[in-house]
Amino acid sequence: MKYTEMSKAQLEAEQKELLAQYEKIKAQHLKLDMSRGKPGSEQLDLSQGMLTVLKTKEDLISESGIDCRNYGVLDGLPEMKRLIAELVQAKEEQVFIGGNSSLNLMYTIIANAWIYGICGEKPWSQQGEIQFLCPVPGYDRHFKITESLGIRMIPIPLRPDGPDMDIVESYVNQDPSIKGIWCVPQYSNPAGYSYSDQVVRRMAALTPAAPDFRIFWDNAYVIHHLDFEDHDAILNIIDECEKAGHPDLVYEFVSTSKMVFPGNGVSALITSTTNMADIKRIMDTETIGFDKINQLQHVRFFHDKAGIVSHMKQHAAIIRPRFETIWQHFSVLGELGIASWTTPKGGYFLSLYTLPGCAKRTAALCKEVGVILTPAGASYPYGKDPEDHHIRIAPTYPSTEELKTACQVLVICARLAALEALLR
Amino acid sequence: MKYTEMSKAQLEAEQKELLAQYEKIKAQHLKLDMSRGKPGSEQLDLSQGMLTVLKTKEDLISESGIDCRNYGVLDGLPEMKRLIAELVQAKEEQVFIGGNSSLNLMYTIIANAWIYGICGEKPWSQQGEIQFLCPVPGYDRHFKITESLGIRMIPIPLRPDGPDMDIVESYVNQDPSIKGIWCVPQYSNPAGYSYSDQVVRRMAALTPAAPDFRIFWDNAYVIHHLDFEDHDAILNIIDECEKAGHPDLVYEFVSTSKMVFPGNGVSALITSTTNMADIKRIMDTETIGFDKINQLQHVRFFHDKAGIVSHMKQHAAIIRPRFETIWQHFSVLGELGIASWTTPKGGYFLSLYTLPGCAKRTAALCKEVGVILTPAGASYPYGKDPEDHHIRIAPTYPSTEELKTACQVLVICARLAALEALLR
Repeated sequence: MKYTEMSKAQLEAEQKELLAQYEKIKAQHLKLDMSRGKPGSEQLDLSQGMLTVLKTKEDLISESGIDCRNYGVLDGLPEMKRLIAELVQAKEEQVFIGGNSSLNLMYTIIANAWIYGICGEKPWSQQGEIQFLCPVPGYDRHFKITESLGIRMIPIPLRPDGPDMDIVESYVNQDPSIKGIWCVPQYSNPAGYSYSDQVVRRMAALTPAAPDFRIFWDNAYVIHHLDFEDHDAILNIIDECEKAGHPDLVYEFVSTSKMVFPGNGVSALITSTTNMADIKRIMDTETIGFDKINQLQHVRFFHDKAGIVSHMKQHAAIIRPRFETIWQHFSVLGELGIASWTTPKGGYFLSLYTLPGCAKRTAALCKEVGVILTPAGASYPYGKDPEDHHIRIAPTYPSTEELKTACQVLVICARLAALEALLR
Repeated sequence: MKYTEMSKAQLEAEQKELLAQYEKIKAQHLKLDMSRGKPGSEQLDLSQGMLTVLKTKEDLISESGIDCRNYGVLDGLPEMKRLIAELVQAKEEQVFIGGNSSLNLMYTIIANAWIYGICGEKPWSQQGEIQFLCPVPGYDRHFKITESLGIRMIPIPLRPDGPDMDIVESYVNQDPSIKGIWCVPQYSNPAGYSYSDQVVRRMAALTPAAPDFRIFWDNAYVIHHLDFEDHDAILNIIDECEKAGHPDLVYEFVSTSKMVFPGNGVSALITSTTNMADIKRIMDTETIGFDKINQLQHVRFFHDKAGIVSHMKQHAAIIRPRFETIWQHFSVLGELGIASWTTPKGGYFLSLYTLPGCAKRTAALCKEVGVILTPAGASYPYGKDPEDHHIRIAPTYPSTEELKTACQVLVICARLAALEALLR
């Protein structure tokens, strides 16, 4: 029986029963963290071999004879560029290899646009108020970057097939103050949605009013399927932009952080020749170069895309059951008519939608008994979920047992929050 | 006999003789690079053990139980902070561990000042024309950073005991548009000068007109002595600033790039509590965190400062003879009265001073026969050496044999350039 169909007395009885359970949970003094998309230790074990692929002097010489121990090579080892190029189906010369953090690479590109301007255009900092489109729910760390620079963020509804392109087009094609859009095109953070071919093509076909508008295509989960027999696949944005005659429209980012050891991964930017020259020119002032030994470790560990795929299948085998655990626990919320959630085929997150006005309260109730969720609202610009109904769920980090406990707690808290709302 | 004492006929005879030698060199089709301060491969071999200190899962747990394979810890592993703190005699909480490039850390701090402002002050980008003091000769990559931001650079004479502090004080204490000074306080790049105690104390005692003035103290060669029995030692700037009542005046930078494998080192910022909080707040937007595995590798390889010292002694044993080779070759230039040079007790460079107006020509003559030097002028803001007399010499990278050849060529070219000038 759905909560909305229950009488007040029935709701009150339910509340009494759940509060008793809640008190018992509180007595357990739990300390569980479901807040961030960190791999679990079982996943980390998969990459242990990374540490032993390079041992001797000879191991540290690249295929073209570069001594990777020394300074030099700003834009990445050729073999690392080739590996990324193969992964995203781009050309080697379209790839720039960065440091250990793709978020930092994105920040750097945006800060450079802010300070120096893109491809000879005026610096963003000198163009008055500028704006970014932010499909929501989205990645809090993206929003934090644009917020820190005072770039106004406009939420755009993210549908299961991608951002609402009618709205995107009307903004981008008409308003020169719109300088960018944050996209996680495959298994979006947090909903887990993947952009349809039509959305990608419309994205590539944008005719921005601003010459320095760019799509920030954070392909964070490029090969992070839960099931390699049944997964999403998105069009190649670099190709589509070229075909549409707008090769400079997009910066694509990928990272190996969630393939190997996070913090010890490699980030990459994939973009057009023109953008690449612009970026290299500026980056040449900002650093001597990135960590080539780490790049070489990647190449020697993975060899090629097939190596990455076989590695990621092992990740999938660990992660998939965790998503399934969550869905099983959530099913009661569906039966009670008080929540819906997404069921992505990859990535690191899913979205839980409570009744309107119940997300913050649910998270607060969880926190009170020691279960930390991503702060409700975090997936929206300025932390403001106008409907207060979204909670980002990160299944990977807790152990299987902890995850089950956390789900039980979360379900009880979501029910209590719903009851409070319905009884108000 | 000195060139200046020779008759025209004698000079012409000398020139004829040297030109013949020069033509013979040209026929050898040399290809030697003395342009950058890269360690030689013998030095790189010293750090081979870095690659095998971490093997098992257990190896990757920090002393406080952090799994270094995963995300987290923005400001560095406690044991890495402790190692740097011991090295520079600071407190652990004054240390921020960055990525693989201290140049990038300096750039980031300056770019943050540019965009966000320092400790609540107006962003540098919104303060009209701002300026940096640049002791000369100095490090070209420092100057490139300030130049890229359009920060006006004012050359300050660098004496054997440090920058001319009368000039520094008169600028800094009176002009609020002066926002920083670039310092390499020990074994300066390129002259190899170390700041005297008096200079360090006067630096710490500055009372800047601008509240957001900072000393950029690039202690790049903190432990890079040529001889551990006879070396320079500078005062601790962090302590001196505290004593002077100006704890926030300085950002000190160090890096392990020239201890271990360049590009795979660790950078660090040492600064006051107030500056640290300001920086962490901003950095928290810019990245998830740096490479903790690399940090752990450092700690397990070096253990403590004593470990670094014993390692650096091995570097010294390799580098010292190279400096000596150069000085031996240069002695003829001294006898001819056409050059002087510095004789640092550490670092990676020395300065060669030709007759006025002869540096560019000397470098050009070298280039024509395949010996690449740092572009003459590079050690001055905007690449402009007003006297055209300075050449940066980098002894470490070529093999011993190559270095000898390069020195022979350089000496002949310096003589030819001097003769041209004297015969003009």
